[in-house]
Amino acid sequence: MSTAPAQIAVTGLAVMGRNLARNLARNGFRVAVHNRSQGRTDALIKEFGHEGEFTPAADLPELVASLEQPRKIIIMVKAGEPTDAVIDELVPLLDQGDIVIDAGNAHFADTRRREDALKAKGLHFVGAGVSGGEEGALNGPSIMPGGSVESYASLGPILTKIAAQVNGEACCVHVGPDGAGHFVKMLHNGIEYADMQLIAEAYDLLRSVLGLSAPEIADVFREWNTGDLESFLIEITAEVLSQVDESTGGPFVDVVLDQAEQKGTGRWTVQVALDLGIPVSGMAEAVFARSLSGDTVRRSAAAGVLAGPSDDTGVSVDRDAFIDDVRHALYSSKLVAYAQGFDAIRAASDQYGWNIDLGAMAKIWRGGCIIRARFLDRIKEAYDRDAALPSLLVDDYFKEAVVSGQDAWRRVVATAATAGVPAPGFSAALSYYDGLRAERLPASLIQGLRDLFGAHTYHRVDREGAFHLDWSGDRKEYSA
Amino acid sequence: MSTAPAQIAVTGLAVMGRNLARNLARNGFRVAVHNRSQGRTDALIKEFGHEGEFTPAADLPELVASLEQPRKIIIMVKAGEPTDAVIDELVPLLDQGDIVIDAGNAHFADTRRREDALKAKGLHFVGAGVSGGEEGALNGPSIMPGGSVESYASLGPILTKIAAQVNGEACCVHVGPDGAGHFVKMLHNGIEYADMQLIAEAYDLLRSVLGLSAPEIADVFREWNTGDLESFLIEITAEVLSQVDESTGGPFVDVVLDQAEQKGTGRWTVQVALDLGIPVSGMAEAVFARSLSGDTVRRSAAAGVLAGPSDDTGVSVDRDAFIDDVRHALYSSKLVAYAQGFDAIRAASDQYGWNIDLGAMAKIWRGGCIIRARFLDRIKEAYDRDAALPSLLVDDYFKEAVVSGQDAWRRVVATAATAGVPAPGFSAALSYYDGLRAERLPASLIQGLRDLFGAHTYHRVDREGAFHLDWSGDRKEYSA
Repeated sequence: MSTAPAQIAVTGLAVMGRNLARNLARNGFRVAVHNRSQGRTDALIKEFGHEGEFTPAADLPELVASLEQPRKIIIMVKAGEPTDAVIDELVPLLDQGDIVIDAGNAHFADTRRREDALKAKGLHFVGAGVSGGEEGALNGPSIMPGGSVESYASLGPILTKIAAQVNGEACCVHVGPDGAGHFVKMLHNGIEYADMQLIAEAYDLLRSVLGLSAPEIADVFREWNTGDLESFLIEITAEVLSQVDESTGGPFVDVVLDQAEQKGTGRWTVQVALDLGIPVSGMAEAVFARSLSGDTVRRSAAAGVLAGPSDDTGVSVDRDAFIDDVRHALYSSKLVAYAQGFDAIRAASDQYGWNIDLGAMAKIWRGGCIIRARFLDRIKEAYDRDAALPSLLVDDYFKEAVVSGQDAWRRVVATAATAGVPAPGFSAALSYYDGLRAERLPASLIQGLRDLFGAHTYHRVDREGAFHLDWSGDRKEYSA
Repeated sequence: MSTAPAQIAVTGLAVMGRNLARNLARNGFRVAVHNRSQGRTDALIKEFGHEGEFTPAADLPELVASLEQPRKIIIMVKAGEPTDAVIDELVPLLDQGDIVIDAGNAHFADTRRREDALKAKGLHFVGAGVSGGEEGALNGPSIMPGGSVESYASLGPILTKIAAQVNGEACCVHVGPDGAGHFVKMLHNGIEYADMQLIAEAYDLLRSVLGLSAPEIADVFREWNTGDLESFLIEITAEVLSQVDESTGGPFVDVVLDQAEQKGTGRWTVQVALDLGIPVSGMAEAVFARSLSGDTVRRSAAAGVLAGPSDDTGVSVDRDAFIDDVRHALYSSKLVAYAQGFDAIRAASDQYGWNIDLGAMAKIWRGGCIIRARFLDRIKEAYDRDAALPSLLVDDYFKEAVVSGQDAWRRVVATAATAGVPAPGFSAALSYYDGLRAERLPASLIQGLRDLFGAHTYHRVDREGAFHLDWSGDRKEYSA
């Protein structure tokens, strides 16, 4: 316990809030702590009070009173109404210049609304994305704070200290104003969905096409983790696939029910990207695949009823060659997912005037968070070479990787289709690649159809202007 | 002009409103007409006054005064604020039991809000989806009215008369309460997006893989239109592909800029389906493909930079066999898109308590609208056989079609991947089919990863309950 005023407060002491408070205290900050039900506060002090200077508070007025000014209060409660309730209760207790930080998974539109409302009252509101789960919150998460530059001036030194550190650099930068931080955190989660789906498809192909066992596939992932794919998710995939189930003695993954759950940030990302007009097919297929996996009504109606391929010509594959093909497919598809994700960040940054440094986002994801990967250094470097890079796919380094691996990628998608193994992520990524590079897309036909049935007009390749063809009349072209 | 009170009114006389008013008058209804700027009203009377009994009104009070009770007023203005503005102006002029009909493309959530607000004032609000464009509005659209049963009692006889008729049956039924009509219209549009994307992919494959010219592909579509694929969209695809551009003398489709535009209902559909937890990959890929086609920044950065396949082994294909394979791929993918669309309608109907008759939706889409097709009779029959059918894909008729055509479908997806032709719709549909029928999905691995990094728990195949494995500790399993 401490008698000096606390430097920062945390309200909401479920596991994420508790670990964030401990992280702050362990880093030498005096932390005021509060929870709606006092039990959690007491437990924190009892179990971890020795880790640093904690000031327990029985209620929000006491929490506010224990802080030095400008006050910094981290809210770590459920997104949505619970967060609004805490803000409403806090605001009357605060003074001009105080900083309220929402470190939960808020939708960035809510963050924008809240920032607006608090700014009108002379308060700072900072929506801060925090990634890395319980473990990250305690030992160093990736932190993506939005809000005003002014608030970051006093908050930044604290957040950078408790964030993950990679090569001496903190995984925390000021992302941009208002909702920028929560937007980028949302995108991080969307990319995480895509990444996990692609890993799951790679696993499924090795299992279904080659007939490898879980431990054998674990070895493949362990091997992959020594190369370009090196990342936390690949590492823990090997761990999960190696795990033995104690009650059956067989592979753990084989006793887990194959119904993936989701908490909504993947869905949000796709919905927002749709509004921004950015194709995020990798994330969309990941969200759809989770929904489909949990749809027991339709799956049980279809299983054993809808037959698989009768013709499996071309599915006989060489084991080592196929494993290497799948590695290429995974890497290229992952690159597409990241390219799409960064496109969405850039589009939102333009739309909301956030001025986000894309390379810095790759940098702060290198540690602490779920998608941490060697790969992110390459992305950082790509934006260092060209901050206005139109797509990660056209950066020299990534272009070379995808172009040289594409034949393998194509073989994997073709094999999945032929063998009847669902590979929505790999396929969508390849289709995106081929659509992006196409000299001529069949969208011309779509425009023709739209003009015929709805007089929606079209543009020409050889003249400026919009045109309409009088399809039901003289079939002549008119300027529209 | 008429002296008897008008039976129904239309406000908003742009082309859709004007044609709807003419359709009503031609069918013997006395129609009051109004437009914010009087010019359109005058033009309608002058050009088409002879078609029936019109009562022009200079303003909304005059429009309201010209109607018999309960009044029926169709609003045909832009969705969003313009619609709200007209409603706000109308409401004080109306009496209990009057019916306000929004026949524009409103978001069903807006329709629910408006219906709620008007119900509180004793008025009926009917969100009615109207499909078929200008042509349909004039000669018989497909009409999807929501709102109360009571309002449909007096409105139904009018709407069914002006709707398209197929085999003596009107393409109009009461869809369900509040926003049900606009929801189904939105889904119709989403399906239309998917359908057009699949047609575009079929065209692109015939063009890029076989090197067929637009007129040659037109002949293929004309041939397809005599079989299971028979539909308005296939018919007009042949028309568009046959069209000669008068200034170049070459195929029209080849001079149209390959950037597809969109007005937003496709995007809405995908966003809503995501909320409902229904995979609508066909529609999502269609929306993404349109966005990608219009993204000139990234397309021009990638064209000529990102190379295509170096290895085109397996792309040499027999012309007639490949055409027939593409026909199977198109039909099966289309079926998946419709299955996903009907799943979304069923899910929304359950969530909002709309009690929608799915077979009736297929029935009212058989005429008047853009997706009218022989195929819809088959869907109607499928729901006649089993109103609780879990998925169209498991209906005996469709199952047989897909299972027997799947090898062709797989060859087409594999060929597209190998040849570097983007086929996101075909690929996504096939992945969905293979995911739906899978005995075991790799979602088990995703659940394992989520438990490891976020303690999100998992279920087992052999025991009830949720479990968590202490990954960083003793690696034992605990009940969660």
